[in-house]
Amino acid sequence: MHKNILALAALWGSAAAFAQSSSVTLYGGIDLALAYYRGDGTGSRIQLVPGGNQNNRIGIRGREDLGGGLYAAFELEAGFNADNGTGLPTNTNNQANGTVLATPGTQGLTFNRRSIVSLGGDWGEVRLGRDYVPSFWPIYLYDPFRTGVGFGGVTIQGTTVTNLRASNSIGYFTPACGTPGCLNFFGQAMYAAGENQSSAAANSDGRTMGLRLGYGGEPWEVSIATTKTRAAAVGDFTQSSGGGSYGAKFGRLMALVGVNRTGLPVAVLNNGNRAPFWQVGAMIYAGPGYFPVAYTHVGRNDAQNSSASKIAFGYVYNLSKRTALYTTYAHIENKGALAIPVNVGADAGPTPLPGHPASGIDIGMRHTF
Amino acid sequence: MHKNILALAALWGSAAAFAQSSSVTLYGGIDLALAYYRGDGTGSRIQLVPGGNQNNRIGIRGREDLGGGLYAAFELEAGFNADNGTGLPTNTNNQANGTVLATPGTQGLTFNRRSIVSLGGDWGEVRLGRDYVPSFWPIYLYDPFRTGVGFGGVTIQGTTVTNLRASNSIGYFTPACGTPGCLNFFGQAMYAAGENQSSAAANSDGRTMGLRLGYGGEPWEVSIATTKTRAAAVGDFTQSSGGGSYGAKFGRLMALVGVNRTGLPVAVLNNGNRAPFWQVGAMIYAGPGYFPVAYTHVGRNDAQNSSASKIAFGYVYNLSKRTALYTTYAHIENKGALAIPVNVGADAGPTPLPGHPASGIDIGMRHTF
Amino acid sequence: MHKNILALAALWGSAAAFAQSSSVTLYGGIDLALAYYRGDGTGSRIQLVPGGNQNNRIGIRGREDLGGGLYAAFELEAGFNADNGTGLPTNTNNQANGTVLATPGTQGLTFNRRSIVSLGGDWGEVRLGRDYVPSFWPIYLYDPFRTGVGFGGVTIQGTTVTNLRASNSIGYFTPACGTPGCLNFFGQAMYAAGENQSSAAANSDGRTMGLRLGYGGEPWEVSIATTKTRAAAVGDFTQSSGGGSYGAKFGRLMALVGVNRTGLPVAVLNNGNRAPFWQVGAMIYAGPGYFPVAYTHVGRNDAQNSSASKIAFGYVYNLSKRTALYTTYAHIENKGALAIPVNVGADAGPTPLPGHPASGIDIGMRHTF
Repeated sequence: MHKNILALAALWGSAAAFAQSSSVTLYGGIDLALAYYRGDGTGSRIQLVPGGNQNNRIGIRGREDLGGGLYAAFELEAGFNADNGTGLPTNTNNQANGTVLATPGTQGLTFNRRSIVSLGGDWGEVRLGRDYVPSFWPIYLYDPFRTGVGFGGVTIQGTTVTNLRASNSIGYFTPACGTPGCLNFFGQAMYAAGENQSSAAANSDGRTMGLRLGYGGEPWEVSIATTKTRAAAVGDFTQSSGGGSYGAKFGRLMALVGVNRTGLPVAVLNNGNRAPFWQVGAMIYAGPGYFPVAYTHVGRNDAQNSSASKIAFGYVYNLSKRTALYTTYAHIENKGALAIPVNVGADAGPTPLPGHPASGIDIGMRHTF
Repeated sequence: MHKNILALAALWGSAAAFAQSSSVTLYGGIDLALAYYRGDGTGSRIQLVPGGNQNNRIGIRGREDLGGGLYAAFELEAGFNADNGTGLPTNTNNQANGTVLATPGTQGLTFNRRSIVSLGGDWGEVRLGRDYVPSFWPIYLYDPFRTGVGFGGVTIQGTTVTNLRASNSIGYFTPACGTPGCLNFFGQAMYAAGENQSSAAANSDGRTMGLRLGYGGEPWEVSIATTKTRAAAVGDFTQSSGGGSYGAKFGRLMALVGVNRTGLPVAVLNNGNRAPFWQVGAMIYAGPGYFPVAYTHVGRNDAQNSSASKIAFGYVYNLSKRTALYTTYAHIENKGALAIPVNVGADAGPTPLPGHPASGIDIGMRHTF
Repeated sequence: MHKNILALAALWGSAAAFAQSSSVTLYGGIDLALAYYRGDGTGSRIQLVPGGNQNNRIGIRGREDLGGGLYAAFELEAGFNADNGTGLPTNTNNQANGTVLATPGTQGLTFNRRSIVSLGGDWGEVRLGRDYVPSFWPIYLYDPFRTGVGFGGVTIQGTTVTNLRASNSIGYFTPACGTPGCLNFFGQAMYAAGENQSSAAANSDGRTMGLRLGYGGEPWEVSIATTKTRAAAVGDFTQSSGGGSYGAKFGRLMALVGVNRTGLPVAVLNNGNRAPFWQVGAMIYAGPGYFPVAYTHVGRNDAQNSSASKIAFGYVYNLSKRTALYTTYAHIENKGALAIPVNVGADAGPTPLPGHPASGIDIGMRHTF
């Protein structure tokens, strides 16, 4: 009987008949830090924090050569909190109601970080699924921390569900530069559906569109990007970012500038409708590792002209290409109505009183496989 | 200390001591389609739909030769929605209250598709765990689409939690035909527990029993099957199905007939207690792929003699054995009280007004590994 | 563009650049038993029970040699219920409110069993993440069943969320004995954070500390351990355990003694504040397997001087190192106010009337990979 099923299955190439596991790579990273975070006026917390140097993930990816320069590829990547073993939620429709947090201790693994299948060739790559939005890339690429208590994006990203990734997306990526060390133009375009029924009142909600354009390679690159997500009730959210990085002998220099906008009049929103930000950072090589350092500033056009400045520095000591020990210190100076904690996520630091500072330190270990 | 644990563990063959990962295959499939679905009188939706050609899954399976013709095997398979990265729920007790949907964006991966361990030999195979019910197989095997907007089973299956799989099951499968191309009898029997306490009022609820018998191999086979699930309050659910397929040079022909029954008097149920169905389908080979086409009819013995007819056709273009591009168009003509949407699941099309048509199109890519 | 990201990523050793999947082992075990459990006065249940001989798990682990005797290692292990495919919840803060059960059928896979990264060398090993508490090990190591209906720990462990594992932990393990068959001292120390904000009323809740010390190797070992978890409202929970095992030619003998304490006065708690327990057990080798047998006694200093005694025996027939068939019978004699069912977890047996017996039998198959 099994044979019969397989014979039939073979007619349209099911997994059963054509499994070729050799093409699949199982990969991941686990990173935990002992952390002490403080919010002025509200107290402190001692925690084991996931992802002080790299966010925890486990993934599978593969690539198939289809001949004639064509290839098919996929990537499924699940984030998790290594301090307690929970997974992370994803979002189903690029709208706030597409993520409703699970009860404590129960969140299972989802492919929240990436869930894509793609077809590529000399003409570039088309991707379907859940992927990073274009405007995320400069914020990530031009920050020397990229995650953890030092990450400038903590103050920058805003809380919109599409500030990192979008579900239901179709993306196009320009082809990679063919030769090592060459400089070239690169770009990404994304359309993601909100998947509302046409008869719904705000049937465009969740529709996300973005574009990224850049030029460079090694040792330098620059790029700009923007992503807009429709949200009738609370105002369309637009994240724009741009910057560049330069690799010198002594380290890597980075600069970033951008703005988050919400499409309602400032009079309607108490906390403003514009949040411009800029950041300068560097990774200074020293011994078997580097010192990351960054200064980030974010403003807001509310009644109090609120703002926040974050300074962060640390050291990453590489025990191997896969394993590192690290420490990071960060301090946020909030002004006006802002009360940004020093880190975000499940193990964020305490939210300080509005206009008060927050600070924190991570001491941890990162291991990738 | 580790050594001590391992030494003890060795006494009863724990994973720690005897891990032989070489016997394990990691496999899966990712399939996404851009879809436009319409329900007459209720609107339309543009979506990225998972599983237009094959349902998304990731799994692990292995088999161990125990000597003397005996083998042990296992399979753990998790479904997921590749458009947003969520997993899919399973069911704990073969009853409606054994699946209560998680909040949006939070459903983690479960082994909802299959979770079995088995022992086999010349005498057949005994399986324990969560597996497909016998009556599912004809509905799946004799449909040229098997999933997505073209799948006839969308109109056929009913909404009972055991219409595809049952948990807590013990199954027996007849041995596979020993030689390639031979014709033989095959069969499957299943018993699945509802796991209620004996003192409960409806303590048989969820108990599921099924049987499947067939004859064939290549190029043809026929089979019939039935599965009954106890449910005191809403009436026992019985799904019966039978059909066959024939592989010709130009393609594969398929026919299917069956009925879903609910064990309460029709007077009690407004929507009838019988839903007979039949389907004819074919896969016509053409170029590096095939045209799937099917016509499905389902009736219901309610006051209005409701019925629905679905016609679906498409093309599957194989880029390789593992990768295909495809498109499918489907149209459902509802009559009487029926209001079946063109697809099911998280990304189902809009439910039309009762007695009104629904239609939809998928354009997608499927990649297996 | 991809190249650019990778080039940057290489600067701090991301997974993308340095994935070396060869170091990773995918492992697991699937174990299902047909079970009949009875609780006197409350009825019986027929079930398919996961983990009659070994709890179901799937995991990934790896180890990297860093030179100079140093190594990095990780282990991510998810438990699941193979009878229906659900995962298992974890706990986020070592407090009762850190696990709030998911709705039926929806619990996804979490790394509830273990989620650790570690750095080790001649001086021992430091571990971060979710791991077993010290006092769990004697209860596990000196029981011949370790899981399933025969497991003495069922009556022993108490229901505190840290009776098996703790999240947010930092642990130290003494180095393993260098040569095969040597006897040595071994030890484990653990600190786990409750992660409450300092301004919270019971800000120490969930803080867990434990210690384990032992001596031995093959053929014998002894060890003692204690773990204390802070819980202001319901009283600190302290689990202490100790015992040993001896490997003879005919089998392995085991003895265990310990006590669970709750730090509130007995007058406040109706069910006492001390639960002393002891157990004797053996694994008697016979044919291609062994007979496990154990007698467990637990008391309680409540008004009725309640107690429970469990006797269990079975046979494990090894088909190979990875695969076994087994059967286990167990009987609990409850006295006073105690009403312990014969097994625990999702498929526990019916809870008997207080002071009444419970019993059960498992017949199953275990396969590891």
